[in-house]
Amino acid sequence: MIVLLGGSGYVGGAYQDLFKKRGIEYVSLSRSEVDYSNEKILTQWLKLHQPDFLINAAGYTGKPNVDACEADKHNCLFGNAVLPGIIARACAEVGISWGQVSSGCIYSGSRPDGTGFTEKDIPNFSFRTNNCSFYSGTKALGEEVLKDEENVWVWRLRIPFNEVDSPRNYLSKLMRYERLLDASNSISQLNEFVAATFACFEKQVPFGVYNVTNPGHVTTREVAALIEKHGRAPHKFSFFDDEVEFMKKAAITPRSNCVMNADKLANVGIHLTPVREAIAQALDNWVPEN
Amino acid sequence: MIVLLGGSGYVGGAYQDLFKKRGIEYVSLSRSEVDYSNEKILTQWLKLHQPDFLINAAGYTGKPNVDACEADKHNCLFGNAVLPGIIARACAEVGISWGQVSSGCIYSGSRPDGTGFTEKDIPNFSFRTNNCSFYSGTKALGEEVLKDEENVWVWRLRIPFNEVDSPRNYLSKLMRYERLLDASNSISQLNEFVAATFACFEKQVPFGVYNVTNPGHVTTREVAALIEKHGRAPHKFSFFDDEVEFMKKAAITPRSNCVMNADKLANVGIHLTPVREAIAQALDNWVPEN
Repeated sequence: MIVLLGGSGYVGGAYQDLFKKRGIEYVSLSRSEVDYSNEKILTQWLKLHQPDFLINAAGYTGKPNVDACEADKHNCLFGNAVLPGIIARACAEVGISWGQVSSGCIYSGSRPDGTGFTEKDIPNFSFRTNNCSFYSGTKALGEEVLKDEENVWVWRLRIPFNEVDSPRNYLSKLMRYERLLDASNSISQLNEFVAATFACFEKQVPFGVYNVTNPGHVTTREVAALIEKHGRAPHKFSFFDDEVEFMKKAAITPRSNCVMNADKLANVGIHLTPVREAIAQALDNWVPEN
Repeated sequence: MIVLLGGSGYVGGAYQDLFKKRGIEYVSLSRSEVDYSNEKILTQWLKLHQPDFLINAAGYTGKPNVDACEADKHNCLFGNAVLPGIIARACAEVGISWGQVSSGCIYSGSRPDGTGFTEKDIPNFSFRTNNCSFYSGTKALGEEVLKDEENVWVWRLRIPFNEVDSPRNYLSKLMRYERLLDASNSISQLNEFVAATFACFEKQVPFGVYNVTNPGHVTTREVAALIEKHGRAPHKFSFFDDEVEFMKKAAITPRSNCVMNADKLANVGIHLTPVREAIAQALDNWVPEN
């Protein structure tokens, strides 16, 4: 049996869909029933129910976007940096492996030669580099907290999307924003992300950090063009002149825009669809919200 | 009535001594009785008992020293950066002011001209400057969490000492370490610290951050010489050649050594004894542990 934390969230919901579709036995724990943010309570629950594996899809992302984290710093710190440490202790105590949904939003830009960041690159959009949003800072600290832990996979998601219209879906966000910021990004098709991360457990690949993004990267303009091409643009897209204008008019805290290298995951035999193809598929099968 | 959190710690114990000595009504809450790390529970307790003021002397310092924080990062983050945010929300909800025991260990060195750091100087020994211990990083984040809070005094303690021998007392530590690292520091006489910080509430000085150190600064060699002069040296003191040797042989994570400016507190009429005089007094009245 698999235990899922954060099952009510956007990523957690996709794990539930995967498990249901594949007939995998799982329990989605809600904090109101079992306060899994308390190490003792979580440990007791794990001892009692003896799951085979735990997935933590709980975290603090900020709604409607990361700007909200700036006004709720301590809860953001707790959800993204303290909670992973609590779960690590509980899982170690009962001797099970687990997976942490982390984020690629702890990088900015690309390597000097334009290629994507690998898991060996030190985050360059964190408190340590003092250029980040509070959200990204807490996510990078969460990885520091897990750095010496054994028996954990740390899966870096980036800007999730799929074919289902939703306020958390990257494609929906682009359709709804009045103006866009052009930037290069590696992004993650949500259903492929949950399947690929669960495959790490199924295939028992080596523990550690994995970038789980669709191979390649796209610019916002390319994605906007794809949305237009598929007839899903609600209006003509308009762009900010640059990040300075974006920060001045639309944002409180800087955004992570970055290119990731997903070779490590591919090298253990887990493959995601190339990014442009994945976006085209989502737009081909688009399911509007209402 | 005053409510004290962290009353069983080194600093919390000094608050208890102060309140007893002065006949001030207070309650020392223990987390095992009332889990004040839970915002709802703390808020309920405060609503029920209607204290006039809250002091948070709870935090995660690492025992026997800050190196221990490196191996317990998430608890250190919780105690030093998340808990202050929880308390701030609870106190705001019930409308009481409060005081946070913070730390001056978020600075390193001195200003370029050799003078002490004021409350306006941005911490230079933090995650943001990427040169710090995990402990100092969490303490600096704790101040960030409280930055926009109203009705809170943030009191920066540094390397507490007094006349009572104790593993937490700076003078005792110097007496017990085999070798010392010479450095310049501003330090806080513990009983003066608690009296001065409580005076902020009594006098209702403006809210905000205050450096609460004894005026001036001393080198480790000067303190060692004072210990010898007062006949309290258990052995001839020996020193590391430099910080490089110290880090190599005696420490896991870098220490904060810094000079603080305590004028802001003096300017609101709260005075501590000049540092050399305070050290001499402690050594004159020294109470060995057994």
